[in-house]
Amino acid sequence: MIIGVPKEIKTEENRVAVTPTGVAGFVARSHRVLIQKGAGLGSGLSDRAYEGAGATIVESAATIWQQSDMIMKVKEPQESEFPLMREGLILFTYLHLAANETVTRALLERKIASIGYETIQLDDGSLPLLAPMSEIAGRLSIQVGAWCLQAENGGRGILLGGASGVRPGKVIILGAGMSGAAACQVATGMGAYVSILDINPTKLRYIHDILGGRLTTLMSNRSYRLGFDSERAGAEADFPLDGQTHEIRRGVCRHFHRSRRLR
Amino acid sequence: MIIGVPKEIKTEENRVAVTPTGVAGFVARSHRVLIQKGAGLGSGLSDRAYEGAGATIVESAATIWQQSDMIMKVKEPQESEFPLMREGLILFTYLHLAANETVTRALLERKIASIGYETIQLDDGSLPLLAPMSEIAGRLSIQVGAWCLQAENGGRGILLGGASGVRPGKVIILGAGMSGAAACQVATGMGAYVSILDINPTKLRYIHDILGGRLTTLMSNRSYRLGFDSERAGAEADFPLDGQTHEIRRGVCRHFHRSRRLR
Amino acid sequence: MIIGVPKEIKTEENRVAVTPTGVAGFVARSHRVLIQKGAGLGSGLSDRAYEGAGATIVESAATIWQQSDMIMKVKEPQESEFPLMREGLILFTYLHLAANETVTRALLERKIASIGYETIQLDDGSLPLLAPMSEIAGRLSIQVGAWCLQAENGGRGILLGGASGVRPGKVIILGAGMSGAAACQVATGMGAYVSILDINPTKLRYIHDILGGRLTTLMSNRSYRLGFDSERAGAEADFPLDGQTHEIRRGVCRHFHRSRRLR
Amino acid sequence: MIIGVPKEIKTEENRVAVTPTGVAGFVARSHRVLIQKGAGLGSGLSDRAYEGAGATIVESAATIWQQSDMIMKVKEPQESEFPLMREGLILFTYLHLAANETVTRALLERKIASIGYETIQLDDGSLPLLAPMSEIAGRLSIQVGAWCLQAENGGRGILLGGASGVRPGKVIILGAGMSGAAACQVATGMGAYVSILDINPTKLRYIHDILGGRLTTLMSNRSYRLGFDSERAGAEADFPLDGQTHEIRRGVCRHFHRSRRLR
Amino acid sequence: MIIGVPKEIKTEENRVAVTPTGVAGFVARSHRVLIQKGAGLGSGLSDRAYEGAGATIVESAATIWQQSDMIMKVKEPQESEFPLMREGLILFTYLHLAANETVTRALLERKIASIGYETIQLDDGSLPLLAPMSEIAGRLSIQVGAWCLQAENGGRGILLGGASGVRPGKVIILGAGMSGAAACQVATGMGAYVSILDINPTKLRYIHDILGGRLTTLMSNRSYRLGFDSERAGAEADFPLDGQTHEIRRGVCRHFHRSRRLR
Amino acid sequence: MIIGVPKEIKTEENRVAVTPTGVAGFVARSHRVLIQKGAGLGSGLSDRAYEGAGATIVESAATIWQQSDMIMKVKEPQESEFPLMREGLILFTYLHLAANETVTRALLERKIASIGYETIQLDDGSLPLLAPMSEIAGRLSIQVGAWCLQAENGGRGILLGGASGVRPGKVIILGAGMSGAAACQVATGMGAYVSILDINPTKLRYIHDILGGRLTTLMSNRSYRLGFDSERAGAEADFPLDGQTHEIRRGVCRHFHRSRRLR
Repeated sequence: MIIGVPKEIKTEENRVAVTPTGVAGFVARSHRVLIQKGAGLGSGLSDRAYEGAGATIVESAATIWQQSDMIMKVKEPQESEFPLMREGLILFTYLHLAANETVTRALLERKIASIGYETIQLDDGSLPLLAPMSEIAGRLSIQVGAWCLQAENGGRGILLGGASGVRPGKVIILGAGMSGAAACQVATGMGAYVSILDINPTKLRYIHDILGGRLTTLMSNRSYRLGFDSERAGAEADFPLDGQTHEIRRGVCRHFHRSRRLR
Repeated sequence: MIIGVPKEIKTEENRVAVTPTGVAGFVARSHRVLIQKGAGLGSGLSDRAYEGAGATIVESAATIWQQSDMIMKVKEPQESEFPLMREGLILFTYLHLAANETVTRALLERKIASIGYETIQLDDGSLPLLAPMSEIAGRLSIQVGAWCLQAENGGRGILLGGASGVRPGKVIILGAGMSGAAACQVATGMGAYVSILDINPTKLRYIHDILGGRLTTLMSNRSYRLGFDSERAGAEADFPLDGQTHEIRRGVCRHFHRSRRLR
Repeated sequence: MIIGVPKEIKTEENRVAVTPTGVAGFVARSHRVLIQKGAGLGSGLSDRAYEGAGATIVESAATIWQQSDMIMKVKEPQESEFPLMREGLILFTYLHLAANETVTRALLERKIASIGYETIQLDDGSLPLLAPMSEIAGRLSIQVGAWCLQAENGGRGILLGGASGVRPGKVIILGAGMSGAAACQVATGMGAYVSILDINPTKLRYIHDILGGRLTTLMSNRSYRLGFDSERAGAEADFPLDGQTHEIRRGVCRHFHRSRRLR
Repeated sequence: MIIGVPKEIKTEENRVAVTPTGVAGFVARSHRVLIQKGAGLGSGLSDRAYEGAGATIVESAATIWQQSDMIMKVKEPQESEFPLMREGLILFTYLHLAANETVTRALLERKIASIGYETIQLDDGSLPLLAPMSEIAGRLSIQVGAWCLQAENGGRGILLGGASGVRPGKVIILGAGMSGAAACQVATGMGAYVSILDINPTKLRYIHDILGGRLTTLMSNRSYRLGFDSERAGAEADFPLDGQTHEIRRGVCRHFHRSRRLR
Repeated sequence: MIIGVPKEIKTEENRVAVTPTGVAGFVARSHRVLIQKGAGLGSGLSDRAYEGAGATIVESAATIWQQSDMIMKVKEPQESEFPLMREGLILFTYLHLAANETVTRALLERKIASIGYETIQLDDGSLPLLAPMSEIAGRLSIQVGAWCLQAENGGRGILLGGASGVRPGKVIILGAGMSGAAACQVATGMGAYVSILDINPTKLRYIHDILGGRLTTLMSNRSYRLGFDSERAGAEADFPLDGQTHEIRRGVCRHFHRSRRLR
Repeated sequence: MIIGVPKEIKTEENRVAVTPTGVAGFVARSHRVLIQKGAGLGSGLSDRAYEGAGATIVESAATIWQQSDMIMKVKEPQESEFPLMREGLILFTYLHLAANETVTRALLERKIASIGYETIQLDDGSLPLLAPMSEIAGRLSIQVGAWCLQAENGGRGILLGGASGVRPGKVIILGAGMSGAAACQVATGMGAYVSILDINPTKLRYIHDILGGRLTTLMSNRSYRLGFDSERAGAEADFPLDGQTHEIRRGVCRHFHRSRRLR
C-alpha cells in the first residue's frame, strides 16, 4: 500500500502523523511511504531522518494526496484540502466529526473511507490513540492554571502549591479519567489542595490508592455534565478543571478565561 | 546516695519512675536503689527484674520515703504522701507547680529540694523529659479524636481519614511544637485534611519539608492563645487540637467534650 | 413505579436507603418516591431536602409499605415489619439471608421479590454495593483497634503507631480484599508494623506496589478460614484483623474483645 | 511612636507593609498607625479592616511622610518620594542598597535612619524577612519555567514533568538555600529530573534526606558564582535556575529569556 | 493419585517442588505423596515436617519415579534421570523446552505427559507460576548489579544509589513486565536514576503511577529485542537490565560481565 | 606554600587526596602543588587534568616528600614512607592514631606537624571530613549485606527487600549517626524491615520524621557498646549493622563473616 503523509496546515499544529521509526515499520512490512518535504520539522524530525528510514520525500501535498492509497494526518482535513480528497481514499487521522458538520459532509460526498484515531478502541474499551494526548493535556492544564493564577498574568495572585505558612490553592477536578488523573498527579505534586469528582467509584479508588492522603476523592452525586457540581466547584475552587477535555490549546484558553471570570 | 522509688498512688497512673535498666545504671555508679514492691507492675515490670538489676524491694512506701536521700516519682506528691516528706529530702518528679498551690506550699513548708522533670532543659532550650510525653500525647490525640468522631461514640459520624469517594475530616492543629508535629504525622497518615498554625515560621517550614503536600501550614497572625484563631478554628474544623497540651488523659477528655459540643 | 423508603427501625441503624439526589434521579425517570417522615434525620438529611428533590413525605411506615411497588431499605426486614410485607412486593435492601433463617422463611412465605444489595455483581465479579461498606469497615477497624489498645480502654497500653524511640504495634490482616486493603492504608499511615496475608498473589502484589516498603505481604499457604494462620497471627500480633468482616459495629466489638482476651 | 504606611507607588508592586493584624499589634503597644487610603487594596485588605484594627486612614501620602516617626514600606523610596524624606525619619523597608546608588545617596543626604528588611538577622544567621520571599520565589520559578518551556510560549516544547512514556525535563538548580530548596520541592513534585548544586554539604544532605531518590544532589567544586558550573549547567539542563535570586518578577523574566536563548 | 517428589539433582538447585503445606493439601484430597529423603533440606524443610503433613519418605529416587503417577520437580529432568522416565508418567515441572532439544526428544521418545510450569496461564493471560520467580529475579538483579559496580568487585566504582552530593548510577531497564517492574522498585528505592523502556504504554503508565517522579518511563520505538535500543542503553547506563530474563543466576553473570565490559 | 600529593601505596586504596579542582583552588591562592605521576588514576583523574589545573607532575614520591611544606594524603603513612618524613613537615591525612601505635611513634620521633582529617571539627561539633565517608559506608553496607544474604554467596538465602508475598529481611542498625542514618535510607528503600537503635532521642526523632512508618526507631537502654543489645540484635536480625564503623572494606568483611556465623 502507498501511505502518504502531508504536512499539517491547520494553524499552530506542529505535529506530524508518522515518525521515522514508524516509517521503518511500514517499509519493513512492504508498504511505500510518501512524506511531504518538511512535514516533520515542527516536531524536530528532518527529511533526512525520514529518508534514512525508507520514506520518499515529495515536494507537493497534491502529489501525495493523489498517489497514496491511505493518507495519514494529525488533524481533520482543512477546507483547502477538500478538493484533494478523491473517492476510495482511506483517511486515517483525528476527526472528531461530532463537532464538525462541514468535514463530515465533505467526507461523505467524496466517499472517503475515514477512520478517526479517536475511535480506535481496545478490547477493554480503552482508547489508545487518545490516552497519551489526554495524559499530556491533564498534566499541562495544571501548570497553565498555576501560571494563570499569578497576579501579573491577570490571576488572583495565588501560588497554587502554597508555601510553608501559606495556604495552597484549591483545585477541583471534574472527571477521574486519563487527563483528570494526570492532572491530580501534577497538582498534588506541586502542593495544591486537590479534590477530584467522578461517578465511577473504581476510578476514584485507584487514584486514592496511588495518591493516598494527598487529595480528596469525591463521588459526584449528579452528573457534573448537567452543570450542577461544576457551578458549585467554580465557586469553591481557585480553578476548576474539566478532566474530560482533550484539546490542549483550547483547554488552556478556557482555564485562562475561567480563572479571570472567577476573580 | 540512696534512691527511693515508691509505687505511684495517683488515680490511673500506671507508670513507674525508673526501669530495671535505669536501676542498673544507678548501681553501676555505686548508688543504692529501693523499690516498693509491685511499683513496676502497671508498666509490666516485675519485682524480679528490679532485683536482677540490683534494686532492693521494700514492702512499705513509708520505709522508702524514710530511708532515701532522693525520691524519684512520676507524679507530684499526693496529700497522703505529704507527711512522709521530711526536711532535706530531694524530690525528683513531674511537679507542674504553677497549677498546684497545695503541693507548692507543702514542698516549701517541709523544705524539700524539689526538681521538676518538666524544668530540665538542654543548652538548646529543648525539654528532654517533656519531649517524649508530648510526642506520645500528640500521636494519641489524633487516634482518640478519630474515635470520638464516630457516631456510636457521640461524634459527628465522620471517618477522620475519609475513604475513596468520601471527604476526609478536617483537623486544625494549634502549635507546631513536639506534640503538634507528632499529631500532624498521624493525622496526615490516616488521610485527614490537616492544617497547622504556629507563629514560628521555622517550625512550620520543617513540617512542610517532611510532610510536603499532605498538609497546610499557616502562620498564626495573632497569638492563638488569645482565643482568636482558636474560635475560628473550632468553627471550621471537625476537631481542633491544641498542640500545647501535655496531659494525655485530660487532653483526651477535652477533645471528647469539644467534639460533642461542636455537633 | 412507586418507590417507598420507610425509616430504619433496627437498633443503632442511622442510615437511610436513598439520598435526596437519589430521589431526584428516580423522579427524573418518572417514578414516584414516598419517604417516611424523619427517615433521613439519622444521616443529617431533612424532610425538606427530600421534598425539594420531589419526594412525598408520608407519616406512617404502614402506608408506605402498602402503597409502594418497591421498598428500599438499608437493613433486612425486622419482625415487626413482617406483617407489612404483601405478596408481589419488590424488596431491595441488604439481606444477608445465609445467616438469617427467620427472615428467609418470612420472605418465601409472603412471596416477596427480594434483591439483596450484597448480591449485585458487575461483569468483573466485583460487588459495587458492598465495596464502599467494606472500605469504610477496613479503615474504621484500625482506628477502633488503636483505641482498644490504649491502657485506659482495657488494652495492652500500646500506641499502635509507635513514636520516635518506641516500637509500634504489630497488625496482622487476614485477607487482602477491599476492607483488608483499606485497613492496610490506615495502619501503615499511622506507623504500625503491618503484615497482610492472602491466598491471591495478585492482590498482595497490588498492595505491595502501592504501599511499598511500608508493610509485609505474605502468601497464606492454607486458608486462614480453617483457623490455622489465624491462631498463630493472634499470638504474634497486637491485634489481628479479619479483612473479610463487613459488619462495622459488630467487627468493632469483636476486635475489642479479642484485644482484651489476648492480654 | 507614630508609624506611617504610604501606598506603594513602584510599578506592579501590589503589596502593603503592614496587615490589619500588624496594626492591632502596634496599637496594643501604644503606637499610632497612619495608613494611606487604599494602601491595602492590591493585597485585598480594605480601609475598613485597617480602621477596625485601630489605624487612622489618611488621604495623602505627603501627610503620612510628614507626621510619622517611622515609615514602613515594601519597596525602596522612589524618586518622587525623595522630597518627602526629612532628616531624622526612620525608614523600615526592603532597600537592597548595594544595587542602587541613587537611593543610597538620597538617604545619606537626607540623613534618614534606614533599616533594610533584608539586613535583619537572627542569632543563627538566618534572614527572617527574606526567607518567605525566597521560598515563594523558588516555588514560583519552577512553575514559570515550566510555562516558558511550552512551545506556544516560545519554549522548546518540553513538558517539564514528563508523562508516562515521555522523558521529563531536566532542571539544574544552583544553590541549595531557601529558594533553591523550595524550587526542588516543586520541580520534583511535578516529575522533573532535578539536580541541585551547592558548596555546602549539610544543605545538600538535608535536601537529600527529605526528597530522597527524587533528585540528585551535587557538590559544586568551584563556586558557581564564577560562571563555571553555570555555563555547563546551561548546556545540559532544559533550564538552569539560580537559587540565589530573590527578585521574583525579574527572576521570572530572566528564566524566560534564558529558555529562549537556549533553544 | 500417587504424587512423587524426588530430590533435585541439578547443580546449585536448592529448591523443592512441594512444601509440607502443599503435601497436606494433596492428602486432604485423597492423594498419596512420596518424598525423597532430604528433598526439602536445601529449602530448610525437614523430612519430619513432610511426614507430619502426611507424606511418605522414600529413600531412593528410583523408587519414587517408579511408583508415582505424577512426578513433581523444580527443574527439567537431567540426563541421569532419563532412564527413570516410563511411558504414561505425568511430569509437572519447569521445562523451558524451546531451549533444550535433548530433554524434548527424551520426553517425546518416552511418551511422558509433560506439563511445564511456565506454560500455565490464567484467563487474563498472566503466568502465575512464572510471576513470583520473575519478581524475585527483578529485585535480585539490582542488588547484584549494585554489588558488581563496586570497585573491589571489578566494577566502575559507582555507588548505585549515590549519596548526598554524589551522583547516583543510571539504570536502564528494558521491559516493564514482572521482573522489570520489580527491578524498578528496588533501584528507585536505593536512589538510582532509573529509566524503563517498553512498547506497552499501559505497563509504563502503571509504573509511572506507583513510582511517580522517581523514574523515567520511555516508549521503546523499535523493539529492543533487535538490539537497537539495547546497544544505546548499554552506552548510556551504568548497567542495563533486561527485564525479560528469568534465569536468576545466569542473569547475574551476564550483568557482571557486562559491567566489566563497559568499563 | 608547596603542597605535595604522593600516590597512595596502601593496599586497595584507590583514592587521591586532591582533585584537579582542589589544585586550582590552591593555585588561585598562590600555593604550588606537586602531584606524583599517576596519583589520580585510581579515581579516574589523569595527570593532564592536574596539569591543566596548575599542578606540577613529579615522577618520584621521594622528591615530593622532600620538596613540600605540606603533604596531603588519604591514608596514614605506611612504614616504607617513614624514612621520607622529615622534621617540620606538615602532614594532612586520615590518621586514626588511637588504633595505631607504630605510626604515632614515627610521627612523634620525626616531629611531624600532623593533622588528622578525622579530627577537623566545625563549631557545631560535626566532623566534615568524616561525614561523606560515613554516609557512603552506611549506604554501601546495606548493599553488601544484601549480597551476602544470597544463598550462592554463603548467606541464608534471604532476599533483603522481600517481594510481594515474601517476608523481607530484618535489619537492626546500631547507632543513628551519619552512617547508620544512611544505611536506614537504603535498607528501607530496598524494602527491608528496619530497626535502628541509639541513645540519642533527637537523632532517632529526625530519622523517624524523614522515614516515617518505614522503620522502627528504638531507644537503646544500655550502651550497645557493652555488647548487650548487640548480642540480642545479632540473634534477631538477619544481619546487624554497626552504624559506627567507618572503614568500608573492613566493615564489609565483618558483615560477610557475621552473616555466615549466624546461619
